[in-house]
Amino acid sequence: MSLDTAEPTLETLGWVGNAIDGHVRLIDQTRLPTEFVRIDCRDVSSVWEAIRSLRVRGAPAIGIAAAFGAVLGGQKAGTGDLDSLRRGLLDASAYLRTSRPTAVNLFWALDRIERTIEENRGLDGPTLLERVLTEARAIADEDKVMCRSIGRFGAELVGTGQGILTHCNAGGLATADYGTALAVIFSAHSAGKAVHVFADETRPLLQGARLTAWELQRRGVPVTLICDNMAAQVMKEGKVQMVIVGADRIAANGDTANKIGTYGVALLAKAHGIPFYVAAPSSTFDLSLPDGSSIPIEQRDPREITQGFGRQTAPEGISVYNPAFDVTPAQLIDAIVTERGLIRPVDAKTIRKTLGPPRSSQS
Amino acid sequence: MSLDTAEPTLETLGWVGNAIDGHVRLIDQTRLPTEFVRIDCRDVSSVWEAIRSLRVRGAPAIGIAAAFGAVLGGQKAGTGDLDSLRRGLLDASAYLRTSRPTAVNLFWALDRIERTIEENRGLDGPTLLERVLTEARAIADEDKVMCRSIGRFGAELVGTGQGILTHCNAGGLATADYGTALAVIFSAHSAGKAVHVFADETRPLLQGARLTAWELQRRGVPVTLICDNMAAQVMKEGKVQMVIVGADRIAANGDTANKIGTYGVALLAKAHGIPFYVAAPSSTFDLSLPDGSSIPIEQRDPREITQGFGRQTAPEGISVYNPAFDVTPAQLIDAIVTERGLIRPVDAKTIRKTLGPPRSSQS
Repeated sequence: MSLDTAEPTLETLGWVGNAIDGHVRLIDQTRLPTEFVRIDCRDVSSVWEAIRSLRVRGAPAIGIAAAFGAVLGGQKAGTGDLDSLRRGLLDASAYLRTSRPTAVNLFWALDRIERTIEENRGLDGPTLLERVLTEARAIADEDKVMCRSIGRFGAELVGTGQGILTHCNAGGLATADYGTALAVIFSAHSAGKAVHVFADETRPLLQGARLTAWELQRRGVPVTLICDNMAAQVMKEGKVQMVIVGADRIAANGDTANKIGTYGVALLAKAHGIPFYVAAPSSTFDLSLPDGSSIPIEQRDPREITQGFGRQTAPEGISVYNPAFDVTPAQLIDAIVTERGLIRPVDAKTIRKTLGPPRSSQS
Repeated sequence: MSLDTAEPTLETLGWVGNAIDGHVRLIDQTRLPTEFVRIDCRDVSSVWEAIRSLRVRGAPAIGIAAAFGAVLGGQKAGTGDLDSLRRGLLDASAYLRTSRPTAVNLFWALDRIERTIEENRGLDGPTLLERVLTEARAIADEDKVMCRSIGRFGAELVGTGQGILTHCNAGGLATADYGTALAVIFSAHSAGKAVHVFADETRPLLQGARLTAWELQRRGVPVTLICDNMAAQVMKEGKVQMVIVGADRIAANGDTANKIGTYGVALLAKAHGIPFYVAAPSSTFDLSLPDGSSIPIEQRDPREITQGFGRQTAPEGISVYNPAFDVTPAQLIDAIVTERGLIRPVDAKTIRKTLGPPRSSQS
């Protein structure tokens, strides 16, 4: 599909130049909203670091970054010796898998890269590296199309004049462009539905305050920033008619891992009779997991909480619990918006039906 | 009652010197936990500023600070002319009432000061000023006794080895000493009940991270700091067996205003079958309000959210909603712990019975 070029695109990340000496360029999201800076990653470790330190974040964007990152591993090995090139690519892929544990798109994208390497055993070095880059670019391009499709399907859920609460950032910055949960909002806004967004700031790293508020403001969507602990109050005041969030991994039964705090928001929505939706591409589903209990949850550095803003805001030596994600049970989710349509009700059968037969990429 | 002098006391605030040229000394809570600094307030406006900017905060402590602050107004007027002294005291009281709107203890304490002025019309200037200071000191001393009593009554609710979640700071720093919600925890801890506390950091001003974590650590109570949006997850993991918080104003039916986020925590506790308790002295009840709908809710500066840590963490010009409090309906509260005993169930009848006949101070 063609993108509406009248809308500002983000180009969250991409590949600059050719396969032999090009590199990854991405927006350093840790510096938003006060600085808009793109950084160039010219080796695998700098891509790994960019993912680990959330310079690039959001499940789909992590997958894309890793796919491009694998190309850098091949570059370094060189295209002269085919075995060495293959080893360089595969080692890079293995290393990038260790960057973050929860978002399944990372593993899904690297599965595609590794399959590409396997399926092109007969090619010479330069052509193989070119072929791997083409696959990484395809992952990015497909993501853009998926986001637009999610936006279209999700916009049906939005009524005119509604208040919409979202948590963390599932916007253009979390994807190649346009987003998942925010795609639904952008799409409804473009259709003239006059929505108003409440953005949870999303401690500890403030993706809502720094990224979601910035993206919505940039596109002219009315937005009010709140602290996470104000969500219940704005719901009680009748200001919110729906909640929509992204996802980092969705199990076969619909249990959904997303940014810490999502589960609480889902419970609060339930208590106020407000529908709760998840928006995610099919690459976020992990059908190998029957339910959410086996989704690995990343634990992050306590200093994100105690020194999150360059200032010590807790006593020295205090014990901290800092899970990056939580799991929202399928029963609390009214629908999942995918690029293939709405999943409603959210259960294993409807998920299988909507996503179609298992693809080998989900193995 | 006598205080256990083996325990570290805080002396959150107090009066230094005599009525004629003494002053208020208080811990500047905005500088904790990295700096422990006491400041001296020598005029009414500096007490007003200390309350407004949360150098002193917590409903009981605000009331005590205001009562002492009124004495400073009398000081300035001088004791030579009785009419002028009375006007100085009453003007100070009226001014201090404008410092913050939600905590009823502020108005309750200033009612006591004004009644003292009225009831001592026959005295000469110096003796009247002395009498007003004595009343302010009585408010502080009574608060200490109330806190210990709340601790004793509340400790009955705590089982050995329990996880206890609290929000904001209802500790020694929120009172003359020892606290309300934290008094219950301190008391259970002293009784050897091996509790473990989860402290919500409490955005935007981080009273949980800065003050509650600091107080608990200081007294050797095991504590884990979490972001507000992690409360649901620690409940789901079975780590929390009770929630206890303080209060800024409690209506006649038990609806309770407390720090923003409290209502959400109460809903999450309900969803997980965890009892939710409030701890507050009788001075926090406002029996003139039938329910919580008429409790005034303070709206605070958006910069507390967008620039809360000395760094801009949201886009320029973003719209912000920053209510300082919310109201938890009585139905979500399993018991209120007062210095006169437990209120359970939480309803108008049980509240009236526990607090006794309306006192004129509640008018």
